[in-house]
Amino acid sequence: MNTFADHPHRRFNPLTGEWVLVSPHRAKRPWQGQVEKLPPVAGVAHDPKCNLCTGNLRMNGERNPDYKHTFVFDNDFAALTPDAPSDYRDDDGLMIAEGESGLCRVLCFSPRHDQTLSRMSVEEITYVVDAWIEQFIDLGSKPDIGSVLIFENRGEVMGCSQPHPHGQIWSSRHMPNETAKETDRQLAYFKEKGRAMLLDYVGKELKLGERIIHQNDHFVVLVPYWAIWPFETMVLPKRRIGGFDEFTDDERGSLADALSNIAIRYDNLFETSFPYSMGFHQKPTDGEAHEEWMFHAHFYPPLLRSATVKKFMVGFEMLGSPQRDLTPETAAQRLRDLPTVHYLDR
Amino acid sequence: MNTFADHPHRRFNPLTGEWVLVSPHRAKRPWQGQVEKLPPVAGVAHDPKCNLCTGNLRMNGERNPDYKHTFVFDNDFAALTPDAPSDYRDDDGLMIAEGESGLCRVLCFSPRHDQTLSRMSVEEITYVVDAWIEQFIDLGSKPDIGSVLIFENRGEVMGCSQPHPHGQIWSSRHMPNETAKETDRQLAYFKEKGRAMLLDYVGKELKLGERIIHQNDHFVVLVPYWAIWPFETMVLPKRRIGGFDEFTDDERGSLADALSNIAIRYDNLFETSFPYSMGFHQKPTDGEAHEEWMFHAHFYPPLLRSATVKKFMVGFEMLGSPQRDLTPETAAQRLRDLPTVHYLDR
Ligand SMILES: O=P(O)(O)O[C@H]1O[C@H](CO)[C@@H](O)[C@H](O)[C@H]1O
Ligand SMILES: O=P(O)(O)O[C@H]1O[C@H](CO)[C@@H](O)[C@H](O)[C@H]1O
Repeated sequence: MNTFADHPHRRFNPLTGEWVLVSPHRAKRPWQGQVEKLPPVAGVAHDPKCNLCTGNLRMNGERNPDYKHTFVFDNDFAALTPDAPSDYRDDDGLMIAEGESGLCRVLCFSPRHDQTLSRMSVEEITYVVDAWIEQFIDLGSKPDIGSVLIFENRGEVMGCSQPHPHGQIWSSRHMPNETAKETDRQLAYFKEKGRAMLLDYVGKELKLGERIIHQNDHFVVLVPYWAIWPFETMVLPKRRIGGFDEFTDDERGSLADALSNIAIRYDNLFETSFPYSMGFHQKPTDGEAHEEWMFHAHFYPPLLRSATVKKFMVGFEMLGSPQRDLTPETAAQRLRDLPTVHYLDR
Repeated sequence: MNTFADHPHRRFNPLTGEWVLVSPHRAKRPWQGQVEKLPPVAGVAHDPKCNLCTGNLRMNGERNPDYKHTFVFDNDFAALTPDAPSDYRDDDGLMIAEGESGLCRVLCFSPRHDQTLSRMSVEEITYVVDAWIEQFIDLGSKPDIGSVLIFENRGEVMGCSQPHPHGQIWSSRHMPNETAKETDRQLAYFKEKGRAMLLDYVGKELKLGERIIHQNDHFVVLVPYWAIWPFETMVLPKRRIGGFDEFTDDERGSLADALSNIAIRYDNLFETSFPYSMGFHQKPTDGEAHEEWMFHAHFYPPLLRSATVKKFMVGFEMLGSPQRDLTPETAAQRLRDLPTVHYLDR
């Protein structure tokens, strides 16, 4: 174990079957490259030009309602549409394509234009959890939808063109790559051991403690052993839940607490509005039980050294394997040591 | 085929076994998000503060020689080192790690600080090809090196902190993820059909023509059927070559011509110094014949609409599958229609 803290090694991700290269000795590398712009300081509570604020007109001519907590609508520029033809082409296994249908929705987290998950109360976040549950059940029960992917892109550096707090839901006939890999691997583990892979994993991490950042009655926030991004985390339940449809009432509030906790720590890390992509991986919505599947969230934040210096996943990462400098244990330690009061409230 | 030109579908990458979601109808989406800074206009031929220019001191105190064409040295901040301990840990298949050793080198493409592959002559690029061949043979023949990954990160947006034209070579005991997947899949195809997958693929593409951008006696530049990045391309040989060690003299110059051609088209696309990560995928350097393997280059360029608006691979892409708006056929058409004289020389 100790040699891994100081020497190059690779770690295996049992959820995807892929490796990450860890180079702990490399953290002292100087940085002369691109720095990101700092995110604009949070603005007004209501922006008359924002297409997600209450009462405003959207591009398609519809007017947003005067919503109090959350608001869901179909994406005006959806990557997936319900009516896509289901053509199939297979040219000797070399050129394979098939029609893909689905539905894309946008979910506003709050009527307040200047909010983020890190600045919302646990109660306010619980309304968001409620909306996610509702959406997962609604979309997942449609016969043509086999997968519901709920995610949030936060910050301009993560391609988010809209500061109003919101997430997206892309649902599709087929499982996308990442959840398809996770399904295969969780199923193989379940067939071999008769238990859910991630439930065994959470148990091990809780015993070891070194990668745990936060826990409450029902959820654990940790840096996975195989984390790729410098401050990547996962949120995992303590019992086996396959998807949002299996949540108890208590678990709703507990998930909101876990999300609030990690979002505040992230903002506190570099005292900035911390960018990330996050999302929930859940069982396929094909009506099967999927006892192998365990619900979880991934946070993929790009920042490495400061509010303006990110980790670039380029060159070796794109063509070979992801590579990280600080170890997951060091990252967990830094996140764990941070205060859980937001720096703007101190 | 025609419905795929206009409707959402997914395409299969036979080299990796993964899918890309194609949403051709989505190109009209407005963009209000982050714009990139334009790259600095090419500067002086020799920069006294550059650690890659001739005669200058590097961080480790060594002085660069007065090189005429290319120059190779060991990376001063290598992610891989030759002496990494080979420890192994496997905690019930859930926490697996092993020591990883290797060598990282930097290759300067030219003594000229203000050059890029797109501005160098085919003759000058041939010197770079020669150096790649030499490095592949040198590193690949070391007993502890099973994989040699040669790549270039170009532009600040691709994490390149150094404008002096250069690439990197990361060699390691194990194959990284991407080439390991490509090895598995090429081997399975070869076992089934008795031919190299990518040789069959090139043959098909040459017949169809619609994704071809350029070809010469020995190489083809094309947008692969399963391209992820808006203007992603591959460079493929017309005969089966497993790696740089199998190149004939004529093929050296032909590869240089192909690289020059696509690099100039890229710069001309948005009349900017076009950022990308590019690299060569080659057979494992384990001394085996690897008749299944076909040498190729991938270009992964991030720009989507202009010199300052890139495609963000976030949210759905990180947690699900890559998604693209314009079809590979449209991208190929646009690249094919561009002049092959650099815009700064016109
Ligand atoms: O070694 P460089 O050029 O400073 O670093 C760049 O390329 C490396 C290899 O692709 C990446 O791991 C780094 O994230 C990137 O910033
Ligand atoms: O739909 P948005 O937020 O405009 O777009 C953003 O998220 C999408 C889903 O992750 C990505 O495909 C886009 O590249 C990104 O810019």
